[in-house]
Amino acid sequence: MSDSVDSLRDHLAPINDLESAAAVLAWDQETFMPDGGAEARARQLSTLQSMAHEQFVADETGELLDRAEEATKQADPLDDGASLVRVTRRDYERARRVPSSLVAELSKATSEAKQAWKKGREEDDFSIFAPHLETLVDLSVEKAEAIGYDDEPYDALLEEFEPGLSTAEVTDTFETLREDLVPLVDAIADRPQLDDDLLHRSYPQDKQKQFGERVLADLGYDFDRGRQDVSAHPFTTSFSVDDVRITTRYDEEYLPSAFFSMIHEGGHALYEQGIDPALDRTPLADGASLGVHESQARLWENHVGRGRPFWTHYFPQLKDAFPDALGDADLDSFYRAINRVEPSLIRVEADEVTYNLHVMLRFELERGLISGEVDVNELPARWNAAMDDYLGVVPDTDANGVLQDVHWSMGSFGYFPTYTLGTLTAAQLMEAAEHDLSNLHRRLAEGEFGPLLDWLRTHVHQHGRKLTAPQLLDRITGNELSAEAWLRYAREKFGALYDLSQSPSE
Amino acid sequence: MSDSVDSLRDHLAPINDLESAAAVLAWDQETFMPDGGAEARARQLSTLQSMAHEQFVADETGELLDRAEEATKQADPLDDGASLVRVTRRDYERARRVPSSLVAELSKATSEAKQAWKKGREEDDFSIFAPHLETLVDLSVEKAEAIGYDDEPYDALLEEFEPGLSTAEVTDTFETLREDLVPLVDAIADRPQLDDDLLHRSYPQDKQKQFGERVLADLGYDFDRGRQDVSAHPFTTSFSVDDVRITTRYDEEYLPSAFFSMIHEGGHALYEQGIDPALDRTPLADGASLGVHESQARLWENHVGRGRPFWTHYFPQLKDAFPDALGDADLDSFYRAINRVEPSLIRVEADEVTYNLHVMLRFELERGLISGEVDVNELPARWNAAMDDYLGVVPDTDANGVLQDVHWSMGSFGYFPTYTLGTLTAAQLMEAAEHDLSNLHRRLAEGEFGPLLDWLRTHVHQHGRKLTAPQLLDRITGNELSAEAWLRYAREKFGALYDLSQSPSE
Repeated sequence: MSDSVDSLRDHLAPINDLESAAAVLAWDQETFMPDGGAEARARQLSTLQSMAHEQFVADETGELLDRAEEATKQADPLDDGASLVRVTRRDYERARRVPSSLVAELSKATSEAKQAWKKGREEDDFSIFAPHLETLVDLSVEKAEAIGYDDEPYDALLEEFEPGLSTAEVTDTFETLREDLVPLVDAIADRPQLDDDLLHRSYPQDKQKQFGERVLADLGYDFDRGRQDVSAHPFTTSFSVDDVRITTRYDEEYLPSAFFSMIHEGGHALYEQGIDPALDRTPLADGASLGVHESQARLWENHVGRGRPFWTHYFPQLKDAFPDALGDADLDSFYRAINRVEPSLIRVEADEVTYNLHVMLRFELERGLISGEVDVNELPARWNAAMDDYLGVVPDTDANGVLQDVHWSMGSFGYFPTYTLGTLTAAQLMEAAEHDLSNLHRRLAEGEFGPLLDWLRTHVHQHGRKLTAPQLLDRITGNELSAEAWLRYAREKFGALYDLSQSPSE
Repeated sequence: MSDSVDSLRDHLAPINDLESAAAVLAWDQETFMPDGGAEARARQLSTLQSMAHEQFVADETGELLDRAEEATKQADPLDDGASLVRVTRRDYERARRVPSSLVAELSKATSEAKQAWKKGREEDDFSIFAPHLETLVDLSVEKAEAIGYDDEPYDALLEEFEPGLSTAEVTDTFETLREDLVPLVDAIADRPQLDDDLLHRSYPQDKQKQFGERVLADLGYDFDRGRQDVSAHPFTTSFSVDDVRITTRYDEEYLPSAFFSMIHEGGHALYEQGIDPALDRTPLADGASLGVHESQARLWENHVGRGRPFWTHYFPQLKDAFPDALGDADLDSFYRAINRVEPSLIRVEADEVTYNLHVMLRFELERGLISGEVDVNELPARWNAAMDDYLGVVPDTDANGVLQDVHWSMGSFGYFPTYTLGTLTAAQLMEAAEHDLSNLHRRLAEGEFGPLLDWLRTHVHQHGRKLTAPQLLDRITGNELSAEAWLRYAREKFGALYDLSQSPSE
């Protein structure tokens, strides 16, 4: 590697250390920190983040980038050095375009908005949050203008989470998806509902932890380079490729809550643990995009963890772990129970099928907010109308409707679509893996997860941010992002579960 | 407060945030971090520490100090601003005098020495560690010369932990102590030994935790501003006055191990939680010295926690917690058991009386190393001779002798004496508290710890580093550091326990 790339890398390393330190502090805040520590912790995080930002946007970074670009211009685009230069350049230009004054304004506004959102949600009063949301929309448009975009301001915001993907592409893909998804949900609704009573029995927390962590280890999550703790909202965080942690929360009266969140976060963590160690401590040591990250979580959670082969292997062990709750249950009834589809109000509790409609609704509304087509004050009404339209259910309160998610209060416009991008990407990847790996489902039914993990390591994990999401998909599948693979998967799986060939709406 | 003091404070705040962040990372390293995380963590800690150091020794700090000094020169020395300026000036001059090249050399040498010490200890081979120790001694002398001193290089090293105290004063105090302590230990050895069998029974960990944490809460440790976890070596750490954490380790076959370490660390933590919140996020938010810090740990651990009044209150509760182990025990036999005195090889396992001889031995040897009077190669022989002389026991191996402590491998010369300085200070403070608080021991026997804690808060805790250890002692007791109070306490307590008026050696 050339000296100038080394110099760039050396300059970026302590910035990465600051970001990792901030991640440790944030992890502690959610897992173990006593309440009293909150005020000091906010100050410490703010200091670490602003030091990292200042050092990154410094002129020195630009000068080192210029020299390293010169030195790598003949290199293969997948070369570590060339990739480092390319991705750092992208981050740098983006960060430099946003004036410090706007960064500070956004930071202050989100901190106030988050408080107002909490209060508004507690008191079921959207008007408490509305003025703050207006400010955040205005500042986000200002940020988008500063960064620049091709077609619409939302492009610039989406770019932060999905480099290389345009709002128009997402819109097209989601249109296709919705056209087939709404009828699918309707068809399911016309069929007799699957029974999930057996999931609502007594499942002691220590047994849930023991069983779940055994499964995580089987899937390939390395507990010598990670650990699992408890937090109010499950998340994955990484302090290096050798220290990737996950969290969960337990519901002793509902088995899926912790178990599928473990597999979901485990999927994120397998990605982070699988990044090439040579990329550690650089901006390349992260997911290609939020959507690709989510694809790894959804692939393990849904395609593997909610599949029949998986439970062919694990159901006997699950019965052993919970003899009281599952003594009278069989594999078929359990498989049906964990795949029950039912339109509901709350996104984070939604099933695999209806989840996407929650996401599409949010995408449409936030795109409208940023384009000016949707006014903040009409948001609750628009929300409720879309819920009725897509899911046939209408929130009884704004707390269970427009106020349910934290994202907008954090100014994170462009984040929501990545959930469904991940779902679609997972299906595209799974089709490719099924093509490449013979007898994949039989192997999963034997508890053999190594081939699938190795395939993901080779094609996805190791590359970190070297490839964008579209590049990655193209290399692996030869295709662009598309809803078709997921629709094929959903029609087949839920068609069988709900016996949809019998349905009058088919 | 003047603008120039505010400017200094604003400049120091993010440096304090970096140090606090490093403390969180170090805490995680000892409590929860998976093994794989070690390498990245070392890098992250090194980055945070060197950024904090660089920002502190910057010329800007000196300029801000100059202006703030000018603005506070008429102020009361106990004024927050004047104290901030005075203490920061002391730290700054000290830090500026040590060249960066020497800081880097010491950092490298200690990291290598720690590995060598570990290996030497495992293989019971002092020669593995010896050359590294020689390097550390040389570099420490160099550091002492750079800092400057009045009488001998050791002064400059001691000053880091005990501002305002000279080697000569410590030597004099320890001489007085040793003259009376060695005969006391001999006298105890001539008497029938106290029986501590009942401590070596089965004490389940969860019950130990439950009982110990109830006691900690009773003493005044605020679990909303702290928490207790498990680590190999117990410690206290502070991320702000509102987030002060302790750790312990459990031995299910020996009750005192966890319990007295909890009270000990709890004493450190009560100090940190009691610092005036106005001093938080400044260099003043710390103990006056390591000795004063240790005094708070020893006061609660020994004067309170190993006292008869304490167990008059708690022994019935302890019996309830451990009915199997203590069903046949009574308060007297328990009180005797936890105060058994017995010369032994290992400092951290030593009782309240002989502990000081372990410390004095280390102080004499390390002072000799720094002055050149003791050669590294004769250290094992000198160690063993002193053990025989003071305690009448000789290590069977160097692993159980000169290689038992980590401190020298960290280049921490001047640290050891603070353990006994803390013991002596605790006794001086306790005499003053007994004078000020009527019926103190009766109140302790009723589980009423508030008056003692309030007294310590008022006289010691709240001031943080505003006063040095000698200033603090003078304000509270009108006296200098002295061994007399502790000798009075030990003669009375252990005289009664071992019935020393009957002893032929009295």
